Amino acid sequence: MINVVKIGGNVIDNPPVLEAFLRDFAAMEGKKILVHGGGKEATRMSESMGIKANMIEGRRVTDRATLDIVTMVYAGLINKRIVALLQAMGCDAVGLTGADGNVIPATRRPAKPIDYGFVGDIDPAKVNHRFIASLLDEGKIPVFCAICHDGAGTLLNCNADSIAAAVALAASRIDDTRLTYCFEKPGVMTDVEDENSVIPLITPTLFETLKAQGVVAAGMIPKLQNALKSASEGVKEVRICSSNNLLSDRGTIVRSQE
Amino acid sequence: MINVVKIGGNVIDNPPVLEAFLRDFAAMEGKKILVHGGGKEATRMSESMGIKANMIEGRRVTDRATLDIVTMVYAGLINKRIVALLQAMGCDAVGLTGADGNVIPATRRPAKPIDYGFVGDIDPAKVNHRFIASLLDEGKIPVFCAICHDGAGTLLNCNADSIAAAVALAASRIDDTRLTYCFEKPGVMTDVEDENSVIPLITPTLFETLKAQGVVAAGMIPKLQNALKSASEGVKEVRICSSNNLLSDRGTIVRSQE
Repeated sequence: MINVVKIGGNVIDNPPVLEAFLRDFAAMEGKKILVHGGGKEATRMSESMGIKANMIEGRRVTDRATLDIVTMVYAGLINKRIVALLQAMGCDAVGLTGADGNVIPATRRPAKPIDYGFVGDIDPAKVNHRFIASLLDEGKIPVFCAICHDGAGTLLNCNADSIAAAVALAASRIDDTRLTYCFEKPGVMTDVEDENSVIPLITPTLFETLKAQGVVAAGMIPKLQNALKSASEGVKEVRICSSNNLLSDRGTIVRSQE
Repeated sequence: MINVVKIGGNVIDNPPVLEAFLRDFAAMEGKKILVHGGGKEATRMSESMGIKANMIEGRRVTDRATLDIVTMVYAGLINKRIVALLQAMGCDAVGLTGADGNVIPATRRPAKPIDYGFVGDIDPAKVNHRFIASLLDEGKIPVFCAICHDGAGTLLNCNADSIAAAVALAASRIDDTRLTYCFEKPGVMTDVEDENSVIPLITPTLFETLKAQGVVAAGMIPKLQNALKSASEGVKEVRICSSNNLLSDRGTIVRSQE
């Protein structure tokens, strides 16, 4: 079994939460991979350098200056901080972008209809699972940030959830794989105010019902769609849970079969 | 034969020079490793963020803010730019700090007599040559920046020349190793104004003579001492040459035997 775990900004931005999470991650047995998002550090960095965020329809455009900043913050500061902390916990981490060993090739998103700049999309079939397998076989723990490259010398800013899904699918070509998305909530909830309303299992039929009833919040819809897609394409188990509950079986399991 | 090549700021700060150098590096046959220094980007970055360089006796102190910046710039921006360019040239590069795979453990320099902050020294005997060997065996090209860690969760700023020497010594435990220091001059010269005054071979006796005569410039003395040390400790050949001459045999060869 290979565990692929994804953490986002809510964990990264809070040093004690990050350290507690990493202790749990380090304690997980067997082969494992960490994928991390960005957090607010890149925004803080841009602001301190006087670089204004360029937004189109509420989404950030990755121009050249922003690409340099996210490369520095994600692949440099955050990735290497996590690697050093994991190493101190006895976890033999190796930090990677998709460019390293060409492990995750990406394609720059077409400039039409909207040019989001240096943003990349990933074809999970192209992930270099052999390099991942050889690192895992040596007892290494790959730690991915969401920077990839186009293979022609240009780095690209990618979506960390998509990286996690692509890496999990690649890992499932090596061994049975479990993909865990850690976030600030205890799971997918029918009532966001009630921590006891976590839905333990979501299948495609239930997802359609929840969506039709408007029970699933807007931001959760693409997350669940991705989770269902990963499950249907070969990832053995997909779980959405709180970063505090990595070692428990709490949270929401997403399964492609009813 | 394993080639370990070190480049510094003069190459990194000049994109066309960097690209030309990387083309030559990509064209080198066999197993190879690149070590890169920093360049002026970290200074520019600090200035744009309003962080003042803290100097003691002419040497920069790596305080927490400076450590974050060098980690971002060296391990993020510069390292990943080089990796992406090498990948585009068909060279299967993997960017690493000393923390990744615990490949280069370092020790924080004692705070007395002068506290230089988060600065590390390396014991070449502790370099993890097995991880380097396994990457090379898989056809990967390790690309090191000069950020290491103390094994207790803290990253440390190290000297890139020392990293190159330590990596070359580790590589020489795998196979015969050649270490090449690329810089802006064609080699060690008796007359810095005369490009034809390159000394083709320096041995310990000649080094002592040149030093006594004041022929070797101040900045070149530690470089030559390190080169002689590497040669005496098992690196097959050490060469100091211009970054334009990587593929030629020009420059200064440093040998530990007369």
